[in-house]
Amino acid sequence: MAIKFELIKESKKTKARLGKLYTPHGVVETPVFMPVGTRATVKGMTPEETKELGASIILSNTYHLYLRPGHKLIEEAGGLHKFMNWDGPILTDSGGFQVFSLGEMRKITEEGVVFRSHIDGSKHMITPEKSMEIQNSLGSDIMMVFDECAPYPSSREYIENSMERTTRWAKRCKEYHKDWNKQGLFGIVQGGMYKDLREKSAKDLVKIDFPGYAIGGLSVGEPKELMCEILDFTTPLLPKDKPRYNMGVGTPDYLFESVIRGIDMADCVLPTRIARNGTLMTSRGKLVVRNAKYKKDFNKLDPECDCYTCTNYSRAYMRHLFNVNEILGARLATIHNLYFLLKLMENIREAIKEDRLLEYKNIFYKKYGYIN
Amino acid sequence: MAIKFELIKESKKTKARLGKLYTPHGVVETPVFMPVGTRATVKGMTPEETKELGASIILSNTYHLYLRPGHKLIEEAGGLHKFMNWDGPILTDSGGFQVFSLGEMRKITEEGVVFRSHIDGSKHMITPEKSMEIQNSLGSDIMMVFDECAPYPSSREYIENSMERTTRWAKRCKEYHKDWNKQGLFGIVQGGMYKDLREKSAKDLVKIDFPGYAIGGLSVGEPKELMCEILDFTTPLLPKDKPRYNMGVGTPDYLFESVIRGIDMADCVLPTRIARNGTLMTSRGKLVVRNAKYKKDFNKLDPECDCYTCTNYSRAYMRHLFNVNEILGARLATIHNLYFLLKLMENIREAIKEDRLLEYKNIFYKKYGYIN
Repeated sequence: MAIKFELIKESKKTKARLGKLYTPHGVVETPVFMPVGTRATVKGMTPEETKELGASIILSNTYHLYLRPGHKLIEEAGGLHKFMNWDGPILTDSGGFQVFSLGEMRKITEEGVVFRSHIDGSKHMITPEKSMEIQNSLGSDIMMVFDECAPYPSSREYIENSMERTTRWAKRCKEYHKDWNKQGLFGIVQGGMYKDLREKSAKDLVKIDFPGYAIGGLSVGEPKELMCEILDFTTPLLPKDKPRYNMGVGTPDYLFESVIRGIDMADCVLPTRIARNGTLMTSRGKLVVRNAKYKKDFNKLDPECDCYTCTNYSRAYMRHLFNVNEILGARLATIHNLYFLLKLMENIREAIKEDRLLEYKNIFYKKYGYIN
Repeated sequence: MAIKFELIKESKKTKARLGKLYTPHGVVETPVFMPVGTRATVKGMTPEETKELGASIILSNTYHLYLRPGHKLIEEAGGLHKFMNWDGPILTDSGGFQVFSLGEMRKITEEGVVFRSHIDGSKHMITPEKSMEIQNSLGSDIMMVFDECAPYPSSREYIENSMERTTRWAKRCKEYHKDWNKQGLFGIVQGGMYKDLREKSAKDLVKIDFPGYAIGGLSVGEPKELMCEILDFTTPLLPKDKPRYNMGVGTPDYLFESVIRGIDMADCVLPTRIARNGTLMTSRGKLVVRNAKYKKDFNKLDPECDCYTCTNYSRAYMRHLFNVNEILGARLATIHNLYFLLKLMENIREAIKEDRLLEYKNIFYKKYGYIN
C-alpha cells in the first residue's frame, strides 16, 4: 500500500498535530521519534527490544549500507526488513547527508556527487538515480530524495544554488522511482536560514508532489531560536494532509519545539550515541553515570522511570559496568534513553490529544532544568 | 538452607551421574555447565536472557570483584545477587586462580599471596581468611577455598608443597566461614598429574569435610588423555553423595569426557569469549563467521539450532555485524554459544537418564568432527 497520512487532530494553541502514518509495514502514530539503526542494527539492541520500548518506525542509513555490506547483498537477502529482522516500518535517508559529512574529497556536479569512502578511500558516485536504486534494493517503506544538506553558515548564493539543484534532483528521484505501493518517497525542503529560499523550495517540491516532506538543513549548528523561526515559517507552506519530518533532532527541547511548530516525525542518533558513553537522559536532566559520585548510589537512574534498566539496576551497578567497560552498560543505557524519548513522544501525543501540550512542556522543562 | 546434593542416578557403562544440587537460591540439575559472569555480568547478556537460555547457576570472579567495584560496595548493595539482578544460584571462585594468572609480582607464603593488581599495580594480599571475607561479602551460594592452581608442568616437589599448603589453607577457610545456611564452601583437590599426591589431597580434604569438591589443576595445558586419566583416578576418591566440579572446562569434548568420568559441574569463559570474536560452536564444529565465504550465506549459523539467533538471523547478517564491529554481533553470538553448550548439557542429562551417553557422544563427535 502507498504511504498515506491521516490527520487526526490539530491543536488550537500551537501548530502541533496528531496523525497516523500508514506504511507497507504498519501504522505509525505521530508525532513520532525514530531510533536510528545506521548499519542495519539499532546499536546493541534486538529488533524485538526496540519495538518493546515503543519504537514504531526506525531509520537506517543508505550511505553506510551501500558501502557495507552493499545494497545488492541486502536485496539478495530479501531486503533490509528481512536481513535485520525488523518487520515494522523503516525510513532510509538518501545518503546525501553522510556523503557530505563522512565522505572524503567529494565533488558536487549537476549529475551527482563523487566521493571517497571514509572506510577504504575507494571512489564512488551517488546520483539521485543511484540513491533511488540503493533504497529500492533496501526496500525501506519511506525513501528520501537525494539532497544536499548545506553547511551552516553558508552564503545566500551557495544556499540558493544548492537548493535549486536539490529540487532538480528531487524531480529526478521521483521520475526514477516506480513502485509507489511498495515504497514511498519524501521530498526535502532546503533553503538554509533564508525564508524566501525556503518558500521557493517548499512550493517547487509541493508542485512535484510527494507523500511527505522533510525540512532539511536544520539543527546543523544554528541557534535554537533560528531553527524555531524557520520551522514556524516553513511548516505552513506544506500541505496539511502530508507528514512533516525534521531530520536529525533528538533532544527533548528540540522535539518539543519541533512538534509545537507542526512537525510529525524526527530522528537522531543522540539517545543511543550518548548512552554508549554512559550519559543518561532523565526527568531531572542529563546524568553522567561514570561520575565518581554515583559509586555508592544505589538509587535508580531516573526516579520517575519504569524502564527495564531503572526497574532492575542501580546507578552504582551502571557505574561499575561503564567503569570496567562491560557491553551490558551500553545496552542498559541504550534501553533507558530510547525508552525515555519514546515515552516522551507518547506523553506529547497524549498532551496534544488533551490540549495541554504547552503545560506539559512547562512541567517537563522545569524538572529537566531547561530554561524556557 | 545448606548446600545439599541428591544423587539421582549412576550410569552403568560410565561413571556419569545425574543429580540435583540444592542451594539457597534454587535447585540445579547436574551435570551442569555454569556460564561465567566475571565482573558481575555474563558479558553482553541480561540475567533474564542467560536464564532463558537454560543457565541454572552462574560463576563470578572473586579477584575481579574484589578489585572493582570492591566487595564491600557489593555487600552494601545487598550482595552480588541483588547488585547484578541475578536471583539464581551463584558460585564464586576463590580468587586464587586469577591472583596467579593475572596478578603481578606475586609472592606465596604460608600466610597467603601478596600481589600487584593487573589494573593499577596496587599491592594486595589475599589469605584464605581474606578470600572467605570477600566471598562472604559477595554472598554467593557456593564459595571455593583459596588454593594454588600450580602450573603445568611442575616438579613433583613443587606440586607436593603446593598441594599440602592448599590443604592447610582449605582448613583455615572452613574455620573462618560461619553461616553455612547462607553459603556453602567447596574444597579443591590438587596434586597435579601425580596420582599419589591426588590421593593424599582428596583424602585430607574429605577428612576436613566439605559439601562439595572441585578437581583443580586440570585443563592447564596438559594433553586431554592425561586430564582423563587423572579424572578417572580421582573421582572415585571423592564421596558419592557430594558434587564434583571440574574447573575451567568448556569445550564439548572436555565436557563429555568429564561427565563420563563422574564430574557434575563445569565452567568456562570459552563459549562467551570466542563468541565475541565471532566464533560459533555448532553441531558441525566451529564456524568463524567473519570468514569471507559467509558473505552471501543466508543460511542460519547451525542447521540444527533453534536458538533466538539461529531462528532470526543469517550467517551473512552475522558476518556483516562482526565486519562493521556492531555490539549486536557479540550479543547474538553469545546467545548462540551459551544456548549450544547449555542444550548440550541438557541432552547429556537426558542421555544419562536413558543410558545412552556413549552413543550420544559418538553421534555428536561424528557430526562435530572430533576424532574419538
